Amino acid sequence: MKGIRQLADYLDISIGTVSRALNGKPDVNEETRQRVLEAAEKLGYVANQAGRSLRKGATGIIGFMMQTGHDTTGQGDSFFMRVFDGVQTVLARHKLDLVALLCSSEEDPDAYLKRIVARGFADGIILSATRFQDARFDLLYKTKIPFITLGRSQTDVGQPWYDLDFEGMADMALERLVANGHKKIAISRPYGEINLGHVFENHCRVVLARHGLELAQQHVYRSSPNEAGGYAVAQAVLSTRDRPSAIVLLNEATVVGFYRGLQEAGLKPGRDMAVLGQYSPQAQFLHPVLTCFRPDLRSLGIGLAESLLATMPDFAQHYPKAVRRQLWPMTLIEGESG
Amino acid sequence: MKGIRQLADYLDISIGTVSRALNGKPDVNEETRQRVLEAAEKLGYVANQAGRSLRKGATGIIGFMMQTGHDTTGQGDSFFMRVFDGVQTVLARHKLDLVALLCSSEEDPDAYLKRIVARGFADGIILSATRFQDARFDLLYKTKIPFITLGRSQTDVGQPWYDLDFEGMADMALERLVANGHKKIAISRPYGEINLGHVFENHCRVVLARHGLELAQQHVYRSSPNEAGGYAVAQAVLSTRDRPSAIVLLNEATVVGFYRGLQEAGLKPGRDMAVLGQYSPQAQFLHPVLTCFRPDLRSLGIGLAESLLATMPDFAQHYPKAVRRQLWPMTLIEGESG
Repeated sequence: MKGIRQLADYLDISIGTVSRALNGKPDVNEETRQRVLEAAEKLGYVANQAGRSLRKGATGIIGFMMQTGHDTTGQGDSFFMRVFDGVQTVLARHKLDLVALLCSSEEDPDAYLKRIVARGFADGIILSATRFQDARFDLLYKTKIPFITLGRSQTDVGQPWYDLDFEGMADMALERLVANGHKKIAISRPYGEINLGHVFENHCRVVLARHGLELAQQHVYRSSPNEAGGYAVAQAVLSTRDRPSAIVLLNEATVVGFYRGLQEAGLKPGRDMAVLGQYSPQAQFLHPVLTCFRPDLRSLGIGLAESLLATMPDFAQHYPKAVRRQLWPMTLIEGESG
Repeated sequence: MKGIRQLADYLDISIGTVSRALNGKPDVNEETRQRVLEAAEKLGYVANQAGRSLRKGATGIIGFMMQTGHDTTGQGDSFFMRVFDGVQTVLARHKLDLVALLCSSEEDPDAYLKRIVARGFADGIILSATRFQDARFDLLYKTKIPFITLGRSQTDVGQPWYDLDFEGMADMALERLVANGHKKIAISRPYGEINLGHVFENHCRVVLARHGLELAQQHVYRSSPNEAGGYAVAQAVLSTRDRPSAIVLLNEATVVGFYRGLQEAGLKPGRDMAVLGQYSPQAQFLHPVLTCFRPDLRSLGIGLAESLLATMPDFAQHYPKAVRRQLWPMTLIEGESG
């Protein structure tokens, strides 16, 4: 690990300029900033060496990186609040604090994380919204910051991860629908590179194939992970010639919009089309009640935090049995919608 | 402003112990930790002096303090995501990053903030969930950390604030209901010390008094700020002998639960009881569509951030016209529920 002086020597610029570049001061030009950040990454620079040595290398902060922006009311809502609750339960034992690192949807998540790492104020990091390929894993691996991911990726640097068991959800949902006689089954998944959409869609194909059924390409609906996205899916489902008799909505925030779309067309979830989805606090108050799959998110947060701490030298002794990688189960909650 | 050495001298304990206490290391006993935190506050200690002077006093981080916990799906959901979006738009101009300071519902917010301040990693702070009396204002005022509050309080240290115009919402909602012939009008507000409940209830009384009407004490329903809370309010409303013909729900997450409660009793919002509420992304997808009051939260976030930066010497020059204190308007969105 190198300090700011080594970084300045390597770049042949002043410590002051390096410091200002690392800390995002507006009077450093963009080219210099890029050079500094690249060198910081290459040399394995650890920010704030002076402060860190004083504090024996610890900031007392665990960062949870999440996406923000107008699109993300879905996973950006109570989902994270419930996970945080579990994470904080564990951190409180060690007087560690949790902060959410908020990456705007207008910013490149990789560049964002690079800057956060350079600022060096977190002892450990939890990454969410993992992508199919995710360069953030490599960055954290190289800089040797302890981290865990909430979500899997094709990228794998050996880090611990926890993820919802979307394969299990696909299994339970589709077996239920097939048993109830459905043959034309649709699914919806979020737009974009987010990994869970791939996992879910792939496994749905596997399950249906067991029964000699296919997931038709026109029955895979991609949408924004929010209410308006669910409404748009309903519009699309209703206007298709080959209308499915059942649908599984992967994102929990899409449900209210999907319900509205059906109801406007005089259709009732459960009676006219089977609708299954992921649990949200609204699910049991919807009319009809949503049949859904519920993960225990507080316990997930506890597992996630314990597994992260198990990788950190100061805390590992307390968590010798932490599970490094785990698919987190979801439970079927019977409702009225299918 | 004092550094860690002055603090150690004052307390007559070692710098190492002070550092470990400030940084929440588990091997410092609680009594010592308290003494250190109190002295830090008293002396106006600024954390991480070495790192800070190197970085010219800036961490590049703005902290947004919010409550977490199983209860807070309401304001803890998309509300904050939309505010963050606006805040980040402003911070991005100056290469500042936003982090959410997550205070667990199991922790005292005052003690939490004291610890965060002692860790000193934010250049400025935004406080939300302001209480009727709020000791956090005094703490930040004394430690001279620039801050702004999203929400008012009886506590006032002259800091800038932005708040939703709950008086305006009460005006519009009640004038509308009275004009439509309602005389028995109920309201719901969150449990606890959160200031907005006081503001809203008080102003509802003022508006009704203009029309010679009263807000009966049994028509003020207090609930958790979430779906289950709304459902409980519906149960209570339906079982009261003196049933109101209209209700205004202050918290946006309560709406789905309230709808469910009415529907289970065979009642329809808008037809059998007028229901008004605060906007959420679900409002327009509910069946019937909710008549609601919508603040532009992204613009609110922009105003909030600009007003905060206007109080910070490094940025004030850019925001000479920032409004220090502002009631943020809400717009009536016509729906089908009343």
